[in-house]
Amino acid sequence: MTRTAERDPAAMLAVAVQEARAGLAEGGIPIGAALFGPEGDLLGNGRNRRVQDGDPSAHAETSAFRAAGRLRGYGRTTMVTTLSPCWYCSGLVRQFGIGHVLIGEARTFLGGHRWLTRHGVRVSVLDDAECVALMRDFVEARPDLWSEDIGR
Amino acid sequence: MTRTAERDPAAMLAVAVQEARAGLAEGGIPIGAALFGPEGDLLGNGRNRRVQDGDPSAHAETSAFRAAGRLRGYGRTTMVTTLSPCWYCSGLVRQFGIGHVLIGEARTFLGGHRWLTRHGVRVSVLDDAECVALMRDFVEARPDLWSEDIGR
Repeated sequence: MTRTAERDPAAMLAVAVQEARAGLAEGGIPIGAALFGPEGDLLGNGRNRRVQDGDPSAHAETSAFRAAGRLRGYGRTTMVTTLSPCWYCSGLVRQFGIGHVLIGEARTFLGGHRWLTRHGVRVSVLDDAECVALMRDFVEARPDLWSEDIGR
Repeated sequence: MTRTAERDPAAMLAVAVQEARAGLAEGGIPIGAALFGPEGDLLGNGRNRRVQDGDPSAHAETSAFRAAGRLRGYGRTTMVTTLSPCWYCSGLVRQFGIGHVLIGEARTFLGGHRWLTRHGVRVSVLDDAECVALMRDFVEARPDLWSEDIGR
């Protein structure tokens, strides 16, 4: 068990940011995510892979969820993501009962995280400057790709 | 372009049912889906692959969406699924603006399809006897696996 984060929000977010940076370096969409267990144990991490794999279903959160493999009981897990989760990823959180969503920023995009709050999910927004900068620069540079990724 | 269905609901559903049957034969969860274009052209099809690939993110609808590859503008597409889409798959439909969801049955499981209706998605439920039987038999035989797949 890798206890990367020990439930420290900044340390948990750092894992997702590292994924986002790696995605950017690959020419992809710079959004990263990680799923942590109750003790801050890293269960899975991943990034948006639309460009890299030609896979429109590979959002950061779904990639992290996939990487964690088959599990039972997500109630005590935390999904950390650099960006407010879109409806697709919010639906994932609700369906599987992920208990906590820790969000890097919700300035450049607002997905379904308020809806999740109404359905009993604990949601924390860190308003992290690096997460904002990553997305702001990316959306400015590649508005077409960003629109594609969120179905606009 | 394979015009399997020519917009005939029963023919479109048959593609998803074939996927569900194939999944069952593989020891998997018998849910299938397919994404069709405006003229009934098959864009992608797939099935639940939790068991086959050890991939909890591979629901039938997300598999079909993935198989269709990178696209722009889902407004005139139809997602056909043998079972009412869970919140995860309903979120996919909403985020990408898929215009129409054609559902085999909603008796054994009710996901988010009424929510989709409220958000402007056209939803049709065929109440197909084979789809009901596939799921009813499966849930009876493997309640543990079904619970796992929907995060219970």
